[in-house]
Amino acid sequence: MANITKKVSWSSRGDESGGGERTPLLNGSEEVRYTRQDAGCPKEIPHNEKLLSLKYESLDYDNSENQLFLEEERRMSFLGFKCLEISRWVICGLIGFLTGLIACCIDIAVENLAGVKYFVVKQNIEKFTEVGGLSISLILWAVLNAAFVMVGAIIVAFFEPGAAGSGIPQIKCYLNGVKIPRVVRLKTLVVKVCGVICSVAGGLAVGKEGPMIHSGAVVAAGVSQGRSTSLKKDFKIFEYFRRDTEKRDFVSAGAAAGVSAAFGAPVGGVLFSLEEGASFWNQMLTWRIFFASMISTFTLNFFLSIYNKKPGDLSSPGLINFGRFESDSVAYNLYEIPLFIVMGAAGGLLGALFNILNYWLTIFRIRYVHRPCLQVMEAMLVGAVTATVSFAMIYFSNDCQPLGPDQSEDYPLQLFCADGEYNSMATAFFNTPERSVRSLFHNPPGSYNPLTLSLFTLTYFFLACWTYGLTVSAGVFIPSLLIGAAWGRLFGILLASITPDGSIWADPGKYALIGAAAQLGGIVRMTLSLTVIMVEATGNVTYGLPIMLVLLTAKIVGDYFVEGLYDIHIKLQSVPFLHLEAPATSHWLTAREVMSAPVTCFNRIEKVGTIVDVLSNTSTNHNGFPVVVPVAASDDMGKVCGLILRSQLIVLLKHKVFVELARSRLTQRKLQLKDFRDAYPRFPPIQSIHVSQDERECMMDLTEFMNPTPYTVPQETSLPRVFKLFRALGLRHLVVVDSENRVVGLVTRKDLARYHLGKHGLEEMQLAQT
Amino acid sequence: MANITKKVSWSSRGDESGGGERTPLLNGSEEVRYTRQDAGCPKEIPHNEKLLSLKYESLDYDNSENQLFLEEERRMSFLGFKCLEISRWVICGLIGFLTGLIACCIDIAVENLAGVKYFVVKQNIEKFTEVGGLSISLILWAVLNAAFVMVGAIIVAFFEPGAAGSGIPQIKCYLNGVKIPRVVRLKTLVVKVCGVICSVAGGLAVGKEGPMIHSGAVVAAGVSQGRSTSLKKDFKIFEYFRRDTEKRDFVSAGAAAGVSAAFGAPVGGVLFSLEEGASFWNQMLTWRIFFASMISTFTLNFFLSIYNKKPGDLSSPGLINFGRFESDSVAYNLYEIPLFIVMGAAGGLLGALFNILNYWLTIFRIRYVHRPCLQVMEAMLVGAVTATVSFAMIYFSNDCQPLGPDQSEDYPLQLFCADGEYNSMATAFFNTPERSVRSLFHNPPGSYNPLTLSLFTLTYFFLACWTYGLTVSAGVFIPSLLIGAAWGRLFGILLASITPDGSIWADPGKYALIGAAAQLGGIVRMTLSLTVIMVEATGNVTYGLPIMLVLLTAKIVGDYFVEGLYDIHIKLQSVPFLHLEAPATSHWLTAREVMSAPVTCFNRIEKVGTIVDVLSNTSTNHNGFPVVVPVAASDDMGKVCGLILRSQLIVLLKHKVFVELARSRLTQRKLQLKDFRDAYPRFPPIQSIHVSQDERECMMDLTEFMNPTPYTVPQETSLPRVFKLFRALGLRHLVVVDSENRVVGLVTRKDLARYHLGKHGLEEMQLAQT
Repeated sequence: MANITKKVSWSSRGDESGGGERTPLLNGSEEVRYTRQDAGCPKEIPHNEKLLSLKYESLDYDNSENQLFLEEERRMSFLGFKCLEISRWVICGLIGFLTGLIACCIDIAVENLAGVKYFVVKQNIEKFTEVGGLSISLILWAVLNAAFVMVGAIIVAFFEPGAAGSGIPQIKCYLNGVKIPRVVRLKTLVVKVCGVICSVAGGLAVGKEGPMIHSGAVVAAGVSQGRSTSLKKDFKIFEYFRRDTEKRDFVSAGAAAGVSAAFGAPVGGVLFSLEEGASFWNQMLTWRIFFASMISTFTLNFFLSIYNKKPGDLSSPGLINFGRFESDSVAYNLYEIPLFIVMGAAGGLLGALFNILNYWLTIFRIRYVHRPCLQVMEAMLVGAVTATVSFAMIYFSNDCQPLGPDQSEDYPLQLFCADGEYNSMATAFFNTPERSVRSLFHNPPGSYNPLTLSLFTLTYFFLACWTYGLTVSAGVFIPSLLIGAAWGRLFGILLASITPDGSIWADPGKYALIGAAAQLGGIVRMTLSLTVIMVEATGNVTYGLPIMLVLLTAKIVGDYFVEGLYDIHIKLQSVPFLHLEAPATSHWLTAREVMSAPVTCFNRIEKVGTIVDVLSNTSTNHNGFPVVVPVAASDDMGKVCGLILRSQLIVLLKHKVFVELARSRLTQRKLQLKDFRDAYPRFPPIQSIHVSQDERECMMDLTEFMNPTPYTVPQETSLPRVFKLFRALGLRHLVVVDSENRVVGLVTRKDLARYHLGKHGLEEMQLAQT
Repeated sequence: MANITKKVSWSSRGDESGGGERTPLLNGSEEVRYTRQDAGCPKEIPHNEKLLSLKYESLDYDNSENQLFLEEERRMSFLGFKCLEISRWVICGLIGFLTGLIACCIDIAVENLAGVKYFVVKQNIEKFTEVGGLSISLILWAVLNAAFVMVGAIIVAFFEPGAAGSGIPQIKCYLNGVKIPRVVRLKTLVVKVCGVICSVAGGLAVGKEGPMIHSGAVVAAGVSQGRSTSLKKDFKIFEYFRRDTEKRDFVSAGAAAGVSAAFGAPVGGVLFSLEEGASFWNQMLTWRIFFASMISTFTLNFFLSIYNKKPGDLSSPGLINFGRFESDSVAYNLYEIPLFIVMGAAGGLLGALFNILNYWLTIFRIRYVHRPCLQVMEAMLVGAVTATVSFAMIYFSNDCQPLGPDQSEDYPLQLFCADGEYNSMATAFFNTPERSVRSLFHNPPGSYNPLTLSLFTLTYFFLACWTYGLTVSAGVFIPSLLIGAAWGRLFGILLASITPDGSIWADPGKYALIGAAAQLGGIVRMTLSLTVIMVEATGNVTYGLPIMLVLLTAKIVGDYFVEGLYDIHIKLQSVPFLHLEAPATSHWLTAREVMSAPVTCFNRIEKVGTIVDVLSNTSTNHNGFPVVVPVAASDDMGKVCGLILRSQLIVLLKHKVFVELARSRLTQRKLQLKDFRDAYPRFPPIQSIHVSQDERECMMDLTEFMNPTPYTVPQETSLPRVFKLFRALGLRHLVVVDSENRVVGLVTRKDLARYHLGKHGLEEMQLAQT
């Protein structure tokens, strides 16, 4: 059995106990650090998957049920609760509507920009095909691409680096309960939307679907708070929802709405949010999430139908549509299922390769490409290279296909083909990736020759791998689907050619679908929600079982080598991500071994100076403090009687809620929940609050503001049990007590997140200083 | 604000303290009773929705992490956990396979039996139409129906009353955490399957879908335990899963597999299970549930395709198939949505009416029809009346429709129609309800005249209402869909006739679908899962938004009048059902007011006699006992140090694990978890365990067997907070402690379930004695 030794010892913290007038012991809270790192380690450890960063705060999903809160709830009538419930529905409707609208804008903008680009390039190529000098076309294409990409990269790199990438890792973290800085700001949304339009129009191997999820989440965070801090506008509505619990619920709805708009998959969106975020199943919440998703896909569909001049045609519910898989009488045969599973395994392998390559690339980028200028240049380089490679592939390909009467190609390139024919390689490269996926799924058998597909798979694989992680806003879903569809179709064609009766494998499009699922599953390793998303996007439930088996196989095979792409990126950011369950072999760890100790506690009535000192201690930066009743005639730790948060203390200090002042200024307005809500979520730092020397000697009565019933566990509780409680209730702080109810430690997210199953059994990560 | 006074005082319990040698205070546990009921109330209060029955035990979703358990977990290697995980998948696959197989058997049996019946009656009618004497046909039909129904009713009434009805209320309760006696037994399954075949073949206004959910759950409970107590066969496999936590997880999977097989809706099945059961979202569990669902629908589909001689045709994934709703370019228009919402409201009203009528009927049945013979006779009566009414409707109808070339009717009755025509009323009445639903959805416009539909709606409404609650095994889904489809189609026809340009409402089938959703939603009030089930059954995601809006409206309107049908029946059984959240206005209640007190506690080392006495006390029948360390030199309550269950104590007593014996018989085998698992789930009653007078003087050491880290809350905790903890972790007992960690009370399911929001704010239900 795996064994583990605490590699670090706790600092004694004697230096911080200060003047000695603080009765209870100091220390221990969400942020804890180890002596070993205090002494000698490099100050800045920016990205390391072996460390847990302390720069991330947690969201507090547990309500602080202090007296103010309870009084408010008790004052509220049944009707009041009904109104709140109705507001929640209205907000979710709004979230869905706005997310759908954004998706619609992105789609129209990309269609038009890419349309203009391909039209210009096509004209140019046609002009030069006859007379020679196609290198000019190449340069034109490359420059156009690079220009688009440059704009997209500049706004991301210089204005809002948080908008880079697909945003799914960040949203995963947020739903998991980690506050990623700047992730749900309005500015991020604007940059994200513009960025994704540029990068897709710039011809990068990217999709516009991932960013939709992020966009939905930002919309939700904005709408639900009824104000924008960026715009300095407070609509004075939805004030009740200004706390982590409610906000996170709405962000789940926003993410779901994003998925729904991206793939036309409302149920998939709900399951995505549940899979990533909601640990506690709340029926009404799920129902609202579903509502937001439905509205979102409907809005997108409705406006697109108007844009396409077919109002009321609700047949394009998402940004990507796989098109209709006509279910023949026999969709697939039982004996094909093993083949599908083999494809799943292949997808897992290729996905793992993709992830490993991307991991190395990301490490390289972190070390050497961290200046914005370099990032923009790399992005432009990738844009130009993508155009060059595509051009070369098209140029050297001699796979000519006849132009059918019901031609689905938007920009058929004739190039060197005979009249009435078009270059088949161009359908894959000279097109937005969404359209290429659809062509691979639905073009009739024989539209592609195997060589075209192999070359395409190979080049696109490396291009996509290089592209993911660039400082542009872009998703990895569509490139993955495209790679998979290409090799899946190739597999189908080969199968038909090597079997005696090729006709039974007639439809290579089916294999393209399975390949796409396998490749995507191998890269992102989502399971339940991805199955449903794929099924909804194909609009054919018959493929549910094979898709599920394929995704499952891809996940098992892929997990053997390396984690999913999003998890890799989360780990590289050293985010304290909590998985759904404690590691299997962790039953022998108890709360005593896991917790941070000793803990900084406050008394019910505490000296202002003490509080200010503790909060100002930048080396600890704790966020939650147990409130204790000292045990009479004993130097021991006090009995826990509450828990108070840094943010609450800050508001109390700001409003100078001191016992002495309360006596002298009896007419003073009592502090209300509204004051806490107004300060949410950007509580001022302690440094901005001035406390005079006289005030330092005042006392603060925390009784009314602390949470009087924090969840506690005895110190013998096993890690899985602590984990379950922590995860199920979305806690931020869990007080560990002894049999006398005295505080002995505090369990926070980092204490739990640092245990994981490695190659050699249970491993413990260290905590970074930043 | 609502106010509430404790209407009952606690009994002093002085009579039960017995000899006085028990140190801690006695009393209080899962089962508590009130003095007022002790004195004078009738002994047997069989069914009352104002009471909570105490005859139901709770499932324990929280693991008892005692030393034995922890030792086992710690001994287990990582590989061991992997194997367990694989077994779970295998079991889920088996559950899906067997559930699909059962669904297949039911379908084939019903098709054949009903086919024979309709063939015979049709022949007979045709014979007598010309010559007169159709009353003989009527008698034949009525007798055939009554005969089938009699068989179905007899096996249910005399062999296994638990198999009556759809089984959905029982499964809802089980997933909610209430152990309904005999609900997951093999015998129940057999009776259920035979019963549903008889009642559907007997022409009752019932469906075979609800019972599938129950069947799936029984299969799951059986397979996962690796043994059958009824058959006295232990396969010695899956022993690890012999506890409430694991079993309940598998039952969720079984219920989902049942839904999946019934409606061809694997995702709907997953959501059903989640909506009803899993309070804690567990990703791996959900994924396994999905797997079981997929396998189930695939199995059904596969075997049905073989039966229908079209092997590999995977187009009938469920017992009921709504058929393909061909999405024209415009499925519905934006301006139709208000109409759909009006239909939703109508569905809510009609559903409420249905439920109220059925409620009165059920009350009547409880009072007057509780003898099995009477029950069988009532069922036969309903069978005969159904045939008679159907016959009368067909006889007096003169709605003749031409027999088309692509005739979808299986048994077209010509009756008095001209040659080449058939009686349209007969398509609705002279058919299995599944086929009637499909006809209403898909028959071309003009197949029914409005009068036929109105009469059909009216009669079928009352027939279905009378039928639900009979002592036969049958579901209410299909009748509800049928009623709704009939009036929905009627609505569509009327709409087309009153508007100037009728052609835009061309398809009455669309309105039939919306009406079906509205009626079903109005009766059962399921929301999320029902939307997904309907969408999956129609195979067209475009209808998602209208179906959701309709179900939502139906629920809101219906809830205004009366609860859903299943909830009514659950309440009539006085089941302590826990809803997902505490009532909104309950913040002013604290654990102190909610808990049961005083509590029967044990010492770590307790006298056997004391334990036997407490367990034998039939008037209390407690199930969980806090274990305490007495506070030195004080008569006060002890500090909590563990929690032990009745079932554990029973096993300990049975194996005579006494301190004295352990000393004398050192070689004795140590008690293992296996001993507890072998006794699960039917622990012997305390009366069957003989303890001699000498043994009564022995001591038992509970340290090793108790759960040393039970969840506790301080007594000031608000009810919603207690509720959340209880529900999120699936607890059975929650110990309430004071600031010194001394036991002051115990919160159990009944303490929480008795608060509900009534017309006048928060109301408190009383606890029944039985």
